[in-house]
Parts: sequence; C-alpha cells; structure tokens
Amino acid sequence: MTTLIKNGTIVTATDMYNADILIRGGMIAEIGKDIAKITEEMIDATDRYVFPGAIDAHTHLGLADQTIPTADDFESGTIAAALGGTTTVIDYAHQAADVSLQDTLAAWMRKAEGKAVIDYALHLSMYDWTDAALDEIGSLINAGVTSFKCSLVNARDANDGMLYRTMRRINEQGGLMCVHAENGQVIGALTRYLLNNRRGEPRFYPLSRPPEIEGEATGRVITFAEMLKAPVYFVCLSSAHALERVKSARDRGSPVYAETCPHYLVLSQECYEDGNGQGAKYVCSPPLRPKWHQEVLWRGLTSNDLQVVASDHAPYNFKNQKDIGQEDFTKIPEGLPTIEHRLPVLYNSGVLKNRISLNRLVDLLATAPAKIFGLFPKKGTIAVGSDADLVVFDPTAEGVLSCELQSSKADYNLYEGQKIRGAVTSVFSRGVPVVKAGKLVGRTGAGEFLKRRTFVAQ
Amino acid sequence: MTTLIKNGTIVTATDMYNADILIRGGMIAEIGKDIAKITEEMIDATDRYVFPGAIDAHTHLGLADQTIPTADDFESGTIAAALGGTTTVIDYAHQAADVSLQDTLAAWMRKAEGKAVIDYALHLSMYDWTDAALDEIGSLINAGVTSFKCSLVNARDANDGMLYRTMRRINEQGGLMCVHAENGQVIGALTRYLLNNRRGEPRFYPLSRPPEIEGEATGRVITFAEMLKAPVYFVCLSSAHALERVKSARDRGSPVYAETCPHYLVLSQECYEDGNGQGAKYVCSPPLRPKWHQEVLWRGLTSNDLQVVASDHAPYNFKNQKDIGQEDFTKIPEGLPTIEHRLPVLYNSGVLKNRISLNRLVDLLATAPAKIFGLFPKKGTIAVGSDADLVVFDPTAEGVLSCELQSSKADYNLYEGQKIRGAVTSVFSRGVPVVKAGKLVGRTGAGEFLKRRTFVAQ
Amino acid sequence: MTTLIKNGTIVTATDMYNADILIRGGMIAEIGKDIAKITEEMIDATDRYVFPGAIDAHTHLGLADQTIPTADDFESGTIAAALGGTTTVIDYAHQAADVSLQDTLAAWMRKAEGKAVIDYALHLSMYDWTDAALDEIGSLINAGVTSFKCSLVNARDANDGMLYRTMRRINEQGGLMCVHAENGQVIGALTRYLLNNRRGEPRFYPLSRPPEIEGEATGRVITFAEMLKAPVYFVCLSSAHALERVKSARDRGSPVYAETCPHYLVLSQECYEDGNGQGAKYVCSPPLRPKWHQEVLWRGLTSNDLQVVASDHAPYNFKNQKDIGQEDFTKIPEGLPTIEHRLPVLYNSGVLKNRISLNRLVDLLATAPAKIFGLFPKKGTIAVGSDADLVVFDPTAEGVLSCELQSSKADYNLYEGQKIRGAVTSVFSRGVPVVKAGKLVGRTGAGEFLKRRTFVAQ
Amino acid sequence: MTTLIKNGTIVTATDMYNADILIRGGMIAEIGKDIAKITEEMIDATDRYVFPGAIDAHTHLGLADQTIPTADDFESGTIAAALGGTTTVIDYAHQAADVSLQDTLAAWMRKAEGKAVIDYALHLSMYDWTDAALDEIGSLINAGVTSFKCSLVNARDANDGMLYRTMRRINEQGGLMCVHAENGQVIGALTRYLLNNRRGEPRFYPLSRPPEIEGEATGRVITFAEMLKAPVYFVCLSSAHALERVKSARDRGSPVYAETCPHYLVLSQECYEDGNGQGAKYVCSPPLRPKWHQEVLWRGLTSNDLQVVASDHAPYNFKNQKDIGQEDFTKIPEGLPTIEHRLPVLYNSGVLKNRISLNRLVDLLATAPAKIFGLFPKKGTIAVGSDADLVVFDPTAEGVLSCELQSSKADYNLYEGQKIRGAVTSVFSRGVPVVKAGKLVGRTGAGEFLKRRTFVAQ
Repeated sequence: MTTLIKNGTIVTATDMYNADILIRGGMIAEIGKDIAKITEEMIDATDRYVFPGAIDAHTHLGLADQTIPTADDFESGTIAAALGGTTTVIDYAHQAADVSLQDTLAAWMRKAEGKAVIDYALHLSMYDWTDAALDEIGSLINAGVTSFKCSLVNARDANDGMLYRTMRRINEQGGLMCVHAENGQVIGALTRYLLNNRRGEPRFYPLSRPPEIEGEATGRVITFAEMLKAPVYFVCLSSAHALERVKSARDRGSPVYAETCPHYLVLSQECYEDGNGQGAKYVCSPPLRPKWHQEVLWRGLTSNDLQVVASDHAPYNFKNQKDIGQEDFTKIPEGLPTIEHRLPVLYNSGVLKNRISLNRLVDLLATAPAKIFGLFPKKGTIAVGSDADLVVFDPTAEGVLSCELQSSKADYNLYEGQKIRGAVTSVFSRGVPVVKAGKLVGRTGAGEFLKRRTFVAQ
Repeated sequence: MTTLIKNGTIVTATDMYNADILIRGGMIAEIGKDIAKITEEMIDATDRYVFPGAIDAHTHLGLADQTIPTADDFESGTIAAALGGTTTVIDYAHQAADVSLQDTLAAWMRKAEGKAVIDYALHLSMYDWTDAALDEIGSLINAGVTSFKCSLVNARDANDGMLYRTMRRINEQGGLMCVHAENGQVIGALTRYLLNNRRGEPRFYPLSRPPEIEGEATGRVITFAEMLKAPVYFVCLSSAHALERVKSARDRGSPVYAETCPHYLVLSQECYEDGNGQGAKYVCSPPLRPKWHQEVLWRGLTSNDLQVVASDHAPYNFKNQKDIGQEDFTKIPEGLPTIEHRLPVLYNSGVLKNRISLNRLVDLLATAPAKIFGLFPKKGTIAVGSDADLVVFDPTAEGVLSCELQSSKADYNLYEGQKIRGAVTSVFSRGVPVVKAGKLVGRTGAGEFLKRRTFVAQ
Repeated sequence: MTTLIKNGTIVTATDMYNADILIRGGMIAEIGKDIAKITEEMIDATDRYVFPGAIDAHTHLGLADQTIPTADDFESGTIAAALGGTTTVIDYAHQAADVSLQDTLAAWMRKAEGKAVIDYALHLSMYDWTDAALDEIGSLINAGVTSFKCSLVNARDANDGMLYRTMRRINEQGGLMCVHAENGQVIGALTRYLLNNRRGEPRFYPLSRPPEIEGEATGRVITFAEMLKAPVYFVCLSSAHALERVKSARDRGSPVYAETCPHYLVLSQECYEDGNGQGAKYVCSPPLRPKWHQEVLWRGLTSNDLQVVASDHAPYNFKNQKDIGQEDFTKIPEGLPTIEHRLPVLYNSGVLKNRISLNRLVDLLATAPAKIFGLFPKKGTIAVGSDADLVVFDPTAEGVLSCELQSSKADYNLYEGQKIRGAVTSVFSRGVPVVKAGKLVGRTGAGEFLKRRTFVAQ
Repeated sequence: MTTLIKNGTIVTATDMYNADILIRGGMIAEIGKDIAKITEEMIDATDRYVFPGAIDAHTHLGLADQTIPTADDFESGTIAAALGGTTTVIDYAHQAADVSLQDTLAAWMRKAEGKAVIDYALHLSMYDWTDAALDEIGSLINAGVTSFKCSLVNARDANDGMLYRTMRRINEQGGLMCVHAENGQVIGALTRYLLNNRRGEPRFYPLSRPPEIEGEATGRVITFAEMLKAPVYFVCLSSAHALERVKSARDRGSPVYAETCPHYLVLSQECYEDGNGQGAKYVCSPPLRPKWHQEVLWRGLTSNDLQVVASDHAPYNFKNQKDIGQEDFTKIPEGLPTIEHRLPVLYNSGVLKNRISLNRLVDLLATAPAKIFGLFPKKGTIAVGSDADLVVFDPTAEGVLSCELQSSKADYNLYEGQKIRGAVTSVFSRGVPVVKAGKLVGRTGAGEFLKRRTFVAQ
C-alpha cells in the first residue's frame, strides 16, 4: 500500500519544512517537493503540521484485570492514545509476588495481543529483587524488554543494599534501570502520623509524600548509579527537589535521564483542596506539587535536564474507586487518566505559551523516548526508512477537553472544560491510517510488539 | 541542473539514515530510497556520510590588505574552507577608526565579491561605540548583517558604560551582540609588568591574559545582558573560567550562547614552551590554555553549554610575521590558520574518541550556527527545500595534516604531521560541485552573499 | 585612676558571665568575682550587659569643611558615636585631586586633633591611583594607616588595569585594600538614560545603581584579588548579589571580608517611594535595596560571610542639602546620619528578633573590626590588658529614636519615632567615663590617634 | 583550696593575652595582672599557653567489659585523656538489645563511678528505635543525658521510616540527635561482594564503605532534619562527600553540626596498604579516606562547617584483636586508640602548619563542644565563674608519639615515632591538679558526672 501526505509542514526534533511524504510498505519511502506519484491514498496536509507519532514511554494498560481494575485495557487505552497522537506505548509489565519475570512478560504479551491498535513495547516492573529475578534479566533483554523499573515505594522488602545490588545486576546485563524515586518508608511513617492525627482527607494526601523525599530518593539512587557507572532513568519526576538532583548529576556528565508527566506541568497541589470532594480525582503518585514547581519543570524541559514527557496513564474511576477514600486517602487507588492529552497539553501549555519550540515538542514526545528506549530510528522521527508513524495536526482547530469527548473509559477528565487549540486530524501506524478526520479508523489488534535494543548513552 | 547522491548515510543533528538525495535547482528536492530519476550528475555515497555543509561562524578573510596582512583573502580562504567541508563562512567586517559601519560593510562586500568559492555572510566588528555608529545598526540589519561584535580587548575607548549602552542599542534594534570577552585593561597592565620584568618571550604570552580575566569579562557581560534581557554570543571562548559563567547564565534560562574553536579543544598552553622557537606560531587571542581546560570544553559541547565550534581563522605567517616577536610577544600578530581543519579535528578528537556523536558534530558545525545566525533552514541541515550544501565524507580514509597539503596560504600548519582518519571527498554548494575526489573544482566568485535574518531565541 | 564596674554581665564574642571589672591606668587590670578593692569610681552594673566598646570601621567625620559640608565634624560625630556605644572610629581620610596621601593624612590629623571625645584611627581613601600615590603607601603604613580604599564609583580615571595594579602595590606593601564596589561607568550610563527620560525624582535613584552592578563589581574585584592572592575588604555591602560573590570567594578559602551597614539591614528601597517628598532623605551609596535583600544580609551576618557592621556615617541635612534634588537625584549628596544608632538597631532588630546572639553582636561591632584593622587586642574585647573601652547597656530600658534626641547635628533621623528597647548607660574610653547615665561627660579632644598594625589573615 | 597560675598566655576562642589566673573553690575566681594574693599552690606559666581544658565529645570508655573488650576503661581512658589535655569526656552509653535506656544509663554510671580522673558526661547510643525506647528519652534528658546517637550502620532493624520517626521524637522532647551516617545496607552489599570475590584483606576494607555512601547518608539525614526543623549533629565525619552536604545545609541556615576526628585529618587510606600486615591497625568506622579529603576537612574546620574535633576513642589491641582479621576484615573490631593525641595532633598539624589559629584550636577542642552539648560556660572557656579546668601547654617542648610513652592501654600507637612540638605540662580539673610536669597526679574517682542542659542553637 502507498500513501502520499501532501504539502505538510514536517516537524522533527531539528527541522521544520514543507514537503510531501511518500509512504510505501509501512515506511517513509520518500520526502520531496511535489511528489507526483499516484498512490492508493492521499492526504492534503496543507497548513498542517506533520509530526512523528508520539511515543508514550510510561503506561499501565495491563492493569484492567487486577483486583482494583483500571478503566482501560490495551484496547481502549491504545485507542485513546492514538486519538491523542501517540503511535507507540511502552507499557509496564508488573511483576506480582512470587511470579517470575518471564511469566510476567508472558502474561503481559497475552493482555496486549489482539488488542492494541498501535505498536507497543514493554518494560518490566520488578516487585522482587531476588537472585532468581535478577538472573532472568538477560533473557528478558533477549526478548526485547530492555528496561526494568524499581519502585522505591512498593517493592517487596526493598532496602538500599538490595537496590544497589539490583542496579549492579541490571547494568551488568545491559539493562536500563528505571526508578520511581520516593522514600516508601518515610511515606509510611508520615501516613501513619497523619491518620493517627485524623488527617485522612485527600487534601492531606500530599503531606504524606512531600517533595523533599522525592529529592532525597532521587539523590540516593544517583549516588549508587554514579558508584556503579550505571545509567538510570527516573519515571514520573514531579518536583524541583528531584530535578535539582538530576541536573547536578547531568552537570557532572553522568548518564542520568528523567521523564515528567503532563499533569505535573499544569496541575498543582491546590487540586486536592477542592471543596466539592473532587480532590480524590487528582490522587497520583508522586502527588501534584505546589504551583512553583511547574516553572522549574518547564525550565528542565528546555534545558534538557528532563528529556521525556510520558503519561503514566493509570486510569481509575472516580465513582466507586477514587471516591471511597474521602476520609482515608490510603484507600484511593493512585493513578490518573492521561494517555490521550499529552500532545494537546504540551502543545497548548508549552508551544503556544512560548515555553518550548515545536522541535522540542517532537523531541520530548517522540525522538528522545525512542532513542533512550532503543526504538530509534524505526520510531521517533520522520526520516526515509523509518516507520511511517505519523501525526497530522491542525494548529488552527479549537476544541475542549472533557470526559464526554474522550476515549479513555475513565469516568472523569482531569482538564474538564478546558479550551484548547490544535487537533490531531490523522494518525498513521506503519503507514496504515488509525485516525482520520479525528475519528478512529484503526483496527483492534493491528498493533505489533516491538523488541527494543539495549540502552546506549547519547 | 540535477544531481543524485546515491545511498549515503545522511546525518543531521537528529537523524542518521541511508537514502538518496536528489538535488534540483540548487536545492534538496527529494530524499528517498532508491530514487530512480536520471540526473545530470550522480555520486555514489555508499559507505560514506553525507553531512550538511559546515558553517564557519567566525572567520577573518578580509584582512589580507591590512598593514599586517593575513595570508588568506576571500579566495584562498574560502577554497581552504571548502576543502575542509565548509560551505558557508560568516566573516567579520572590521570597522577601522573613523570609518562608518556602512562604509565598512561596503568595503567588505568589495573584498568578497568575485572571490569566494562558497557562500558568505558578514558580521560587523565594531571599533567605535559612538552614537553615530550605533545609529547605523538598523540599516546594517536591513542589509542582512544582523550581528555585531564588541571586543573588550581592542575597541576604541571602551568602558563599561559604553559597553552597556552599546548592548542596549544593538538589542533594541534587533541585532545580536557578539563579544570577545577578555579584560583589555588588565591585559595591558599584565603585559607592561611582564615586559618591565624582561619576560617578553612567547612562553610568557599566556601570563599576560590568564583565564581568570576571560572569566571575569564573560561574567561582566552576562550581568549587563541579563539586566537588559538581551541575548549575547561569546566568540572564541577558550577557558573553563568563561564557560562556568556561560553555564550559570544558561542555567538561569538566559539567552546566552558561546562558540569555542578547534585549537582550544586539542592544543594547550604547553605549545608556547617549545624549545625550538616555535612557540610564536601558537599566539592567538585568547591564548591556548592549560590542558585541563580541554575536557571542560568538551563537556560543554556535550551539555550544550557551548553550541558552536568556529575557526577564528586569522592566518599570519610564521616567517617575518610571527617570528619577529621572539623577544617581545606584543609584536606577534595574534591569529591562527584554522579554517581547513575544523571538521577533521572535531571528527578525530571528538567523534572517534567518543566525546561527541555524529549528530552532535553536525549540530556544532552546521545546524546551531545556522539557527543562531539567521541562516536556517536555508543552510545548516539536510532537508527538502534547503540549499544543497552537502559534504560527502569518507570515514575510512586516512591522511595527515600538514602545511604542504593545505590550501590556506599560511606557511605553517598547527597540526603538522598529525595522522587523521576520514576525508572530505565531495562538497556541493547550492548543488554545484566545489570539491570532487578531494580536489577543488569550484569556481572563484561562485559564492553569494547571504542576507541573514535577525536572531530569534530557540 | 581606678574604677570598678560591679556585677555586670560581661559579653565578649565568645563568653557571657557575671563578674566585676577593675580598671587601672586606662586598662582592664582584673576581672573577678566580688573584687573588694577600693577604687576612685564605682559603677553598679547589676542586670546590665558590659560590652567591649564598639568600633565603627567606616565613618566620614572629616567632611564638614567641604563645599557640601556634612553636619558632623570630629567633635559632634564622636560625641554621637560615644552616646551610641562606640569608643573607636576609623575615619576615611579623603584624598582630593592632586593632593598627596601624606598631605591628606596630615590634613585629617588636623581635623581630628583636639576634637574627638573617643579614640580614632584613619583609613586612606585614594582618589588618584598614580605611581606617585602608590609610592606613598609604605610611609602611610608606617604612620599607622594600613588600609586604603578604592572606590569604583568616583576614583579619578579609574580603569581595571589601574585597579589591578593598585591592588598589587597595596598588597606588596602590606596594606589592606578596601573597596566600594559598584560599577561607576554603568551608573553613569544608567543615570543619563534616566535623566534623558525625565526620571530624575528620588524614587528613580535606585534604578541608576541596581544590585546587579554591585554584584558585578564585587565579583570583578574578587577575581583580581584571587589572581594576586591579596586580601580585600568590601565596604558598605548592600545586596544579596554582592554577598553571593563574597560567599563564593570565602568558600574557596580566599581572604575576602565585608561589612554591611545598619540601614541595609532594616530599611528598604520602598523608602524612596515616599509620597511626601521624604525619599531624598534615604539617598545613600549604594542605595537601599528591595526588602528581600535584608534577610540575605542577616544570614550573612550569622554565617560569618559578613564580618562587620559599620555605619558609613556621612550626615547631610535634608533641608537645603538633600531636598534640592527632588527633581534630579544627582544633586542629592549621598550619605546618611547613622553613627549613633548602630548598636540600638542591631540589638533590637538582630538580638531581640533572635537573628544574632549577643556574642555575635559583640563580634560584629567590636571584635571583628578590631582584628581585621589591626587594633586587637588593645581594642575590641574585654580581657585583662586591653584598653578599658567599655559600654554598660541596660537591656530593660525603653526609648525612641528621633532627631530631637540625637546628638548628631543632622536635621533628621532615619528611624524617626521608632521605639526601641535597651540603652547605653555608661561608656568608658581607656577607663575614663565618656557617658554617664546616658549623658555625655567626655572631654572634647580626649580621643587619641591609634596607629594600626597591618592586616593579618585570621 | 586556692591556686595561682602566674603569667601565662591565656587563650580562648576569641582572646589571647597575658595574665594571672586565681582559682578558688574549683572555679576561676579572678583573672588579672600581677595578682598578688597568697595561694596554697602557685604555677609559673611564663612563656606557656593556658588553654581551657579540652572536651572530648566522642569516647567509648565503657566497652572494656564487652565480649570484645576495649583496652581502656574509664580509669585508664580518662588518665590518657587528661595527659593529653582533656578535662571532660562525653562517653557513649551503648544500649544493648532488649535493654532499656534507663538501664543502659545506670550501667554506664556504674562503669564510670569511682574510676574517672576527670569529669564526664554521657550520650545515649540507641540500638532500639522502638516506642518503648523513644518514650524514655524525656527521663534521660531529666537525668542530664541530652543527646542520642543513631547509627545508620548497626542499629537494629533500622529503616528510614523509623529514622524519621526517631528524629521527630528526640526533637520533640528537646534532645539532640547525633548520627553516625553511613549506609549500613549498602556496606553489607559491598562487603558480601568483596568477600565473595576473595577480597577480605584489610586493604580492601575501605572499598566496603566508600565516601559516596557517607555523603549519601549524611544528605538523607539532613533532608529529614530539615523536614522536621530538627537540629542534628554528625559524629566522626570523615569525607569531603559528607562535608559537602553539611556545608550546603548550613548555607541554608539549618542547625546542622559535625565533628571530625584527628585521624581523618592526618592519616589516609594508604595506611591500609601497609605491606607488613599493619593495615588492620587502622580499621575504624568510617575508614580513613584518600589523602585529598584531608585538605577539605581542614578547610571545613576553618570555615566553621565543622565545629568540633573529637577522638572517637575505641581502643582495640592489634594482637589478638585487630590482627585476627588479616584475611577477613569483617573480623576486625573497628576503633582506634586516639584519646590522648587530639591536642598534640591538632596543634602540630593545625596550628604549626598555619591551618588554624590558636583561638580556633581552643574553639574546636573546648568551646564549641561545650556550647553544643550543654556544658557551657561551666566548661569550655577561661572566664571568671567557669570551672577551673585548665591546661598549661609548653609550646617549646619537643617529644615523640609512641606506644611506649602513652597511657592508653592499647598495644600500639597510630603515630608511632612521629616527632611533635609542644607538651601538656599541667592540667587542672575544677582547680585540682591532675597532671603536673607532664605526670599524672590526679586521683582515680575524682571525676564527677556532669548533667548537661538541652541543646540551644547558637
């Protein structure tokens, strides 16, 4: 099948120019002025941007079958992603207690198979840091799962000695360690203290995990990484405190990377104060921070101390899930529906407010995650030979974010009623249309599993 | 005329991929797999890199008619540049005492006209900071000369009040201020002190302008720029001391930019100690620094605190020019022949030693200077619609740097006898071959003057 | 003559304890419990603090005979000082154009002789940085004048080369360089710009000399001092910007010292905004700063990045002196009446607000200036063998600061109407009462000239 | 009893002056010139320094009855201390498993009673961080034990949540938390790794606890302390990495304090390399560091980022104790005999090498620990009313450090054969001679238990 995207403004992490794109065999075959070829499909992209398909490096689409189920599975989740301009997700396969990494991977492959409308890859989220688990890392890497998350909040029996050893083993085998850096033990102490003092309402939630301990844990992990000369990638970095540590390490030349999420860039701790009991909607981990952190994070995005914006999509419903914790925030499942709004939020709050350029938008959403997670140049750019994962974006469109209009099955929208400019009009996955005129046309199950290469420092 | 570059490994600041490039009308018309068109010219670039033509943002080709003449004029200088993979130079038009900026520009246009084998643009190097001169800035910008250098070493009657006012006026009119930041008054005091103490030999030259005062002047200029919210670009930054100030300012989000030169990256202060009287060959301004500065500068190139590598080509002969200062370094004309070796040095000492990636090489030599100095995307990248300024580079070639083999008319080579890998085999300027099989085929006078746009922060 | 101070709470930079002090021959002869000796004079200091007499390291008492005369001369100025708990002033002898340093010193000795009620020493404030002036430094040091101020605001023909050379010469001869660090040239440029834009009212005065340029000049001087390994002392440091540079240098171990003044600690830039035309009263150099600088300066006092609090007393009247600049701040003589209020302000805003301890109060006002300026241990502490320069302070007294109650002849008080706690009840100078029950009893001319030793790093 | 110390050079943290000291009733009754009183005892201190008796804030004299006994108990240990110029020790009462704090205190009181030749106070070293233990803190404080050590190396079941909670409870009750900051869990991981790789010899010992993890733990504790606004005191700080964190916190104005020990200032990691099997002698916790750390620590002593030098005296014999770990460093009891050499080492390597002044020596050894640990002004200074704990020091004496000459019962000396200048000639404890002419004259059991006040920030 051949497709021609005519006359769009092509945007990469470096370039912006007007040209036609010829797609053949699922790949970008040719980029040129006035390509005259006759193709099976033709799209007029005049006055529109053509972006590389965005990569969402942090999703949780496989949790829909848990005791506390998320609203989206690989089907509804990837549909929502695609409608938001995302053409690849890297989902976290969550190891459960006493399950091997291989079995975890196998389970996740089954969850995704036949469901995803776009391509997907997997990280492995480790619950056990035992020898048995660590011995499996090599085989996971061979299977194309090359990054391994350690949460300092809820790993089993985690302590710093095990963390250090785990980092060493992952690094020795060529894996990239991803870390959720907060101090789970102090969170526990603070939480008990708050509950003992009858402070269980959602507005007290951020006090149970202040930015200081995210900073502390981030700095601690960096110390170990520098001792081991191992690269490390921080997921869902939310605070100035953590960013300061990442920046210092990068200034020393250490291979330290970090992602933040859209909600940390535009929402703040005040959301928890909501008088109408809506505060629980915003409970995520780490929590939303005081407003001044936002500018520090935006600065990090321009200075390249933050390289990636991912969604951390973990959509729990408000009704019967989040709202049961109105008196005790520990009962609220932590996670937000965000997969669909990454590009719109970043375009509106970033590009249109002159905080980041269009080139930088593409870098944060597509190029950098592709390079860091071993998918480049197959994914993450617009270049001859790359997969034709493309997004046509109309910058003049006007719209509104709302639960009613979203595709995620979550029962609320974090940005309800917010007006936005710009809209994803078409999306291609390996040359095949997934979205046309803003509507889903993709096929469930069309998405393929992507084996990723191991990390190489840029 | 049409040309096809077959099967090269195309490298941009972001991408690296295999494809053909079709050139038509001096521009890149098409990039694709196996372009089948029949063209007037065809080059096989299999196993070769195709880079965007390098931009040399700091040359002095118009000084060949001065009292102390440089060895190269616009003809020999641009030939040397082209053979080294450079397709655009931005030369400094030097205002002399009591000459207007417009007359300075006119004089420089005459020097270049009919001489250059590649395209060229101009900066204006201001000697007077008078109202009359400052009032001319707008007209220069209209003429496409949008950057203005102030040297803190040898401007006439320079003082900080005038510097501040000059910066304000340049910024108000949309110009970009370029600064050579050393403290000329302290240099004067130190020089007199050294000469009074019979320390006039070249080996004492670096003591007359230590890195501390480059740092001081850089910090001072940044203070003024931040007060005025004006962008500033530092030329020929040579020391860790200066880079530290640039880094701090960039950390604060200020639009501060800086270039370094190849010699500061690979040569050190020890060159002045040469026992055979060769020390004078290395006299440049600022001087070469102690060796440890090199790693700090390389770090700056990777962290993007330094954005550009330019040559500061100002070639004086050793015989009868540099060697007359063997007892009194103040008699040595300051400047080095460097225009030809920027790409080889950066490729060998940077890419092959794993200090920078090929993408970063392209950024430093082409993309960043094009963006900063208002030439992008006409110059500085490989994208459809851009000028077909292209360099085909054979990474497997082996060679040696020597005076005998160079095209600059300078009578010595800074890197005499040094073995290198990689060679520029073909160069195109707007689609027209300038170099073929490593030999000049370009036509004197084929280069065109480039009007530049004004600075826009990225 | 012998005197016994009974039962006071003796405070030094380290200690606080209850004891009697026996004075004999102008010196502290004995400190003990229940000294039973019979003395000519006896003071009961029960429930009172006994401090070492304060040293004011920055006064301008010799300017009463200038074209624009200050309100106080050595007589009224030292009377005001004594009533405020100061027993030593170090006045600046101001070199005028074409006057030698020796003649300057001689003139200042004549001004002070027979006038001062307390002891005094002199700094030399250099107007010329010529060889002739620099050659005189050694003889001044021999005469006990061991510190030399260079103002970067109003020295004649100052440039950085001369500054560097001056610093070298002062250091070589054992002198301590004191610097008023602002950038006079930029102040000139900013002032002209403001006046050209009809912004001459006092409320625009701070815009003519923003904290950024104090920071810049401070950093520049430190660069030169570190190149020369010379100590340097900054007078009247007013801003966070300057303090940041001092702190960095001290962190590197460099012998850099600084004083601030009471008004920078408690008054702010808002004073210039006064709607009733009182803004001119606060014009001093550097100007008062935005309020947030105050906490940074207090922090500097506790961290020992600032070592001294001096007055910079230069009292001009409001009527017919300061008020003539209501439309043009350049006509306002810069300087404030402050000599009398240093201890009260620091005690009330520092000690009583728990920002500094009583020990630190003593250090800042007495011990540190004595050590830095070569007067210790004759002055600056309470120890056997030291001069009996003592202040008895009643912490329970209540009072008010006002022009009516002050002894300075200035026609206004910066703190008019402000209520304070604590009062100086007795002051001794070399054992002789100067103040009793808060009233002057000292004799005009009783003060002696103090030859100071040269600087030694602590 | 009355004593007169004639004509010494009295040194305090601020002052240095010549005077006589009259002692009566165990206290300093009078300081004066030529005190003529007739006393029971008279010492001529001409040409000698008189220092306040040194305070050793970190000793382990109560471990002589443990399974692995230290060589010194309260008797031999305080004798050695006194001969080295120390007049007060603050010993750590070590809680054992399942022993209450009160019982721990009682046990330690029994060990000390009737043994100590000088005064002593106690810290409580907590092994359990349980509620039961934390509930006892108030009663300990009432008993005069106001500081509580938490070791991050060997507390039982320590984790960060417990650490945070322990810090909160100590602070709420007015106690000062002392921390041994290394990361015990990582030490465990590194140690197992080394032993698994047959690297058990003493020269590998420092690899098991690198300075990075001391820095990490120090930073972590400071994060918690700043969250809780609690003061914290770091014991035996050994590395630049840890000091950097302390310095940052102090720059932010946080009440963070730290001590280092003499061996970290003058001995380095190379000691473990000893080819004759002597490396084990130097095994202490934290280990000796690479040599460059020493200058950083000295800098910290002058900048006041380090406030105290204590001994951490824990003397194990080489024979049959330390030497049994020649193949497995984990078998070596960690601790060094150092109580006797603190003043000599600091005087020789600090004062005589111009790194610190005599005033600073007194501050580090006596004044600062007295103030921080609630003993001032009874101890820690020379002032009327203070205990007559005094040291007469002959700066002209010459000697040598050796095992043979020491009083500690340890079987080796860390500084064997090192020549020193200066000698302690007399020592008084509350006016009673303990050392005369360098020989012990004190009485076993004369030392009294000192109840300490709670911490107050200075």
